[in-house]
Amino acid sequence: MIADSAVGSRLRELFAPASIALVGASDTSGWARNVYTSLQAGGFQGRFVPVHPRHETAFGIPTRPSLRELEEPVDLAFILAPTEAVEAVVQDAGAAGIRNAVVLAAGFAEVGEAGRALERQLVETARALGITLLGPNGLGFINATDRVAPYGLLLTPPLLSGAVGIVLQSGALANSVLTFGRNHGIGLTLLVSTGNEAMVTTADVIEHLLEDEATKVIALFLEQIREPQRFAELARRAQSAGKPMVALKVGRSPAGQLAALAHTGAVAGDDAVVDAALRQLGVIRVDSLEELLVTAGLLATSPPLRGRRLGVVTWSGGACDIIADRAHAEGLEVPALERSTTAALEKIVPAFGSARNPVDVTGFGLAHQPDGSRTPIAQALDVVSRDPNVDVVVYLGVLVPPTPDPLVEARLDDAVQLIGASPVPVVNTSTTCVDLSEYARDQLLKRGLYVAAGLDLGLRAIGHAVRWEERRARPVAERSPRTESDAPDWLKRRGRVVWAETEARRLLELSGFPLVPAELALSADEAVEAAHRIGYPVVLKACVEGLAHKSDVGGVKLGLAGDDAVREAFAGLHAIAAAALVTPMRTGGLELFAGVTRDPTFGPVLAAGLGGVWVELLDDVALRVLPVDKTEVVEMLRELRGAPRLFGARGTDAVDLDGLAEALVSLAGAALLAGPGLEALEVNPIWCGGGRIEGLDARLITAEEG
Amino acid sequence: MIADSAVGSRLRELFAPASIALVGASDTSGWARNVYTSLQAGGFQGRFVPVHPRHETAFGIPTRPSLRELEEPVDLAFILAPTEAVEAVVQDAGAAGIRNAVVLAAGFAEVGEAGRALERQLVETARALGITLLGPNGLGFINATDRVAPYGLLLTPPLLSGAVGIVLQSGALANSVLTFGRNHGIGLTLLVSTGNEAMVTTADVIEHLLEDEATKVIALFLEQIREPQRFAELARRAQSAGKPMVALKVGRSPAGQLAALAHTGAVAGDDAVVDAALRQLGVIRVDSLEELLVTAGLLATSPPLRGRRLGVVTWSGGACDIIADRAHAEGLEVPALERSTTAALEKIVPAFGSARNPVDVTGFGLAHQPDGSRTPIAQALDVVSRDPNVDVVVYLGVLVPPTPDPLVEARLDDAVQLIGASPVPVVNTSTTCVDLSEYARDQLLKRGLYVAAGLDLGLRAIGHAVRWEERRARPVAERSPRTESDAPDWLKRRGRVVWAETEARRLLELSGFPLVPAELALSADEAVEAAHRIGYPVVLKACVEGLAHKSDVGGVKLGLAGDDAVREAFAGLHAIAAAALVTPMRTGGLELFAGVTRDPTFGPVLAAGLGGVWVELLDDVALRVLPVDKTEVVEMLRELRGAPRLFGARGTDAVDLDGLAEALVSLAGAALLAGPGLEALEVNPIWCGGGRIEGLDARLITAEEG
Repeated sequence: MIADSAVGSRLRELFAPASIALVGASDTSGWARNVYTSLQAGGFQGRFVPVHPRHETAFGIPTRPSLRELEEPVDLAFILAPTEAVEAVVQDAGAAGIRNAVVLAAGFAEVGEAGRALERQLVETARALGITLLGPNGLGFINATDRVAPYGLLLTPPLLSGAVGIVLQSGALANSVLTFGRNHGIGLTLLVSTGNEAMVTTADVIEHLLEDEATKVIALFLEQIREPQRFAELARRAQSAGKPMVALKVGRSPAGQLAALAHTGAVAGDDAVVDAALRQLGVIRVDSLEELLVTAGLLATSPPLRGRRLGVVTWSGGACDIIADRAHAEGLEVPALERSTTAALEKIVPAFGSARNPVDVTGFGLAHQPDGSRTPIAQALDVVSRDPNVDVVVYLGVLVPPTPDPLVEARLDDAVQLIGASPVPVVNTSTTCVDLSEYARDQLLKRGLYVAAGLDLGLRAIGHAVRWEERRARPVAERSPRTESDAPDWLKRRGRVVWAETEARRLLELSGFPLVPAELALSADEAVEAAHRIGYPVVLKACVEGLAHKSDVGGVKLGLAGDDAVREAFAGLHAIAAAALVTPMRTGGLELFAGVTRDPTFGPVLAAGLGGVWVELLDDVALRVLPVDKTEVVEMLRELRGAPRLFGARGTDAVDLDGLAEALVSLAGAALLAGPGLEALEVNPIWCGGGRIEGLDARLITAEEG
Repeated sequence: MIADSAVGSRLRELFAPASIALVGASDTSGWARNVYTSLQAGGFQGRFVPVHPRHETAFGIPTRPSLRELEEPVDLAFILAPTEAVEAVVQDAGAAGIRNAVVLAAGFAEVGEAGRALERQLVETARALGITLLGPNGLGFINATDRVAPYGLLLTPPLLSGAVGIVLQSGALANSVLTFGRNHGIGLTLLVSTGNEAMVTTADVIEHLLEDEATKVIALFLEQIREPQRFAELARRAQSAGKPMVALKVGRSPAGQLAALAHTGAVAGDDAVVDAALRQLGVIRVDSLEELLVTAGLLATSPPLRGRRLGVVTWSGGACDIIADRAHAEGLEVPALERSTTAALEKIVPAFGSARNPVDVTGFGLAHQPDGSRTPIAQALDVVSRDPNVDVVVYLGVLVPPTPDPLVEARLDDAVQLIGASPVPVVNTSTTCVDLSEYARDQLLKRGLYVAAGLDLGLRAIGHAVRWEERRARPVAERSPRTESDAPDWLKRRGRVVWAETEARRLLELSGFPLVPAELALSADEAVEAAHRIGYPVVLKACVEGLAHKSDVGGVKLGLAGDDAVREAFAGLHAIAAAALVTPMRTGGLELFAGVTRDPTFGPVLAAGLGGVWVELLDDVALRVLPVDKTEVVEMLRELRGAPRLFGARGTDAVDLDGLAEALVSLAGAALLAGPGLEALEVNPIWCGGGRIEGLDARLITAEEG
């Protein structure tokens, strides 16, 4: 990441150069030709200086032999030098007073230790010289707002400017992204290929895009999340600023994680944690490049979609069917309309169409009216948009043929007026994902009309947008301010320690976790006395450091109903531990488990679920990255497939959900108290019965680096 | 459906007319203009006769006043007459010796009883005159093979011929389907809008497409499955002929079912049954129009994909990541390659790429080689395709720019050669779903190259194709030849009957279902005697006709351990029934449920699942349309989320799967024995314990029409 805190101003400067030197510019270099041609394709109007030690000219322009011999400094040096020569060129740049550089060469941190050393050296040099460096192993950037596109791939023009900022951790996808975007009228502000992120990181670029007024949505292609704390902070800022972040985060599969590893040297954590983290942060996660762009395109152009009830206006019964199914899959509704709405629609829709929601005006509804009046489909839009049962209108009436047609243009003007007058947002979509013609794109863009490409992607995008608003509108619950602190002194120990259960309980008690009563007994007599105080039946457990799985070694004696049983149990445990923990025996009720473990990216993660088949066969576990509050924990519990059991399904007793949520928040708090050395803190089972919540057994493992 | 069995020859004639009369042809009719223009756009070379009672010419061609006044008969009459005039025009057609007609008018069966009567009359007339009638309320057909496109929508040219036959139950989607197909190089043989299917049904068209040699894949947009028995028969024929059927069946959601109802008057059954039925029949079910077409396009052009192991060759690490994730989601593998393969790749792939699967040759791999030799990506394809661990290669190397380039054409020739020489199928795909340019399409089509549009749709299509081949290759298991027969005499009763359990058992015994032993007792003494023969503990159940839910009314007494308990229980039951069934009490073991109910479309459907939370909270039920065999039932049980419980997960006893499957096949057989009056036959619970399978309780309901 950028060393000083002035990320914004440094990146504004980096991404909007008025003059660029291309180091390694030669007519025979494919990379150089790409950068030069892309600058031209993007419409760069500034000064361009080719630099090459041996060639006199490049692309018909006289070269300079080195950055040191420029007549005046340029705003940006785009460095094509081979890996081993990069360092010297950066020094040249520093000497020439250049403050920004893009380094394309690979062969740095992604190839191993030698490369990492080379990269560290490069960053040190750049920092010392006050140079902001993008890359290495990146392809540059494309600033569509200011029309500066120094990029190592051939860009297919035209470059469409708009409101989507894009960060690519795989720069080679730039053309795919630009082409799909352009063909669907999705314009961008800035696209950045971050490469190895030696200095300018994904988070830096996100921060820049958050500050960039032209950017309304941030789209991300992520192989890894390198600065998770900062990423989280930026995601929260994005949410409160109303700038959605949409991410295609790859590495869901084991093979995908290996692919990411081969590609950038990243080590991925568990994808379920990524899923939970992104959801918590309000980052929309998508599954394909198309979904990334169509969703970003909608969010960049639509007013907020507040509500799940769709009014649907189409020209085809088949399209109505598809929309209804897709809406259902997205958790959206297609409600019945008011009688008055249906009555009004019946005057517009032919008998073989449908005046009910979803509305089918039939192909007739698209026909130009001989008297030049509004088309039936546009009339239907007007009627449906005013129905009080509708939060959003899905509209199939914006269709533009590939060749100019003044009648169509008049209809587009009418659509703009209707959409502007609609009390609820109108989302235009098309039946399938096919490209817009150039004429269609121009006509739509100049009117600010967006057509989400195809019913499948269109409805997915609507689902994302609706859920994003819901999450954003959720009352901000109190969030424990505690983040990971230093561990208490008694817990500071080098190496990996499996603590005795008494210590695990001590930590949990510090944060108020409700535990079953327990007494430590060092002899059979003490155990019997403890049992009398506690009341039969009791449980005896071996209590000693280093014992991770008590029951596996016979270290747990359940259901002891009298003194003799306790004495016998104590004797049995003595082979394992000198001390035993005596607790009451709990039966009936419902058992849950919960624990905090550490994800390599996101740090402490809380997992919870029901016991028994739910976790053993169904892998029914909900996750949250810490910190969490009660609202979050309740939401988490509701995600469990077994959640109905908590709410008293089929005549079982409902659990004290409030108490349970409080307990889990305490568990999370205890885990944070343990500091960065925490490896695992688990309470299993958590017993819920007779209106009580009690942790019956606890386990704590730390692994402080030595 | 067509009355006689000569569907094939009648439809061949209908869909390939050499002469067409358009009834209602006038310059002022939008429909007429559409049909005329579409015929032209499609390249119709035959005779075209406009018919109109009042206008002298249409489209500059002299009209005839009526079909009766044609100089010679035409092969097809396309009838645009208003609803009430259609009948007379069909009579004219008959008088003129015309054998085929398309009727576009709506206002028939889809609008209610009066319309249904009108439609019946129309069909009678047509049959009497020997006319094959497509529609009404349909838009016609598009025969791309023979270039005859009499269609009621304006078609955007060009019409691409190919190997995909399409049936649309929503004709308005034709242009969407044609446009998406054309823009992705997916050509068709025939597209038919079936409308109300008064005479020519979806099944008829499927049968025709099965017989049509040019058709390699059948793509369906279905709102309903009207002739399920015949559909099933045709699906089996399609599978054995190696012509995959791909279906977008709408109506998954309640709203979607309503939308379908509004549109065609269809009443849909449970979507889960549709899902099961299509899977059983080997019909590929898709979720979007794009998936329908890209999947059909792949199946129409690719050799069979036999195996789940993908070799992946790309020019982008990001694309590798996406493919790995998508493959995982489809249940496909991206295996490690042989050492020798990797060694060969290392000579081709630059250090910053990846020589492991998925392979990234980087953007460099796409560059033309100065000496005109094979591009690195093509070299990599050659190497990977020969690796023995690979069943299919996914290839991103077929890229065509929008403008002519002889170098690209040479590379395409090379790709054709490599793909032809590859020991395994090669599937070309692209990073995102964007249109092919006209140039690209032409270059690809003339070489027989298909590029599946985008990684998301491309990998979905591969998943479908692989699973289709797996299902097809599955050994054909014995399938009980029994289909629904007449009920045995004792079971023939009018109205709805909830049979006494003894009768349910009698039916189950007929087909060999293993039931718990039971004796009927008419007095307390008899009950006690029975209990002695059976052995304590026993169960007593009220046994009487009309009692659907015994336990709800206290009609079941469990765990009776002695004579007194039995006497008391019998007395208690006496208020409900004069007779009691005495059975042994079973405990421990695992409980399942199974039952056959009737789906309005597919008839008897077998449902089965585990008891307890599995069905109560998880809705964990697997379905199969009857008839079923053991292989099918075992597969069905494996689909259950709780399936691991059956196989002895977590130390529980494994169930006798073979015995259980046999029992379920018997249950299905018993249900079929009951004949078409069966409403429900259930065995719940089925007890699996101590190596035994026993039905503990049974329920039979019939509802014969009176």
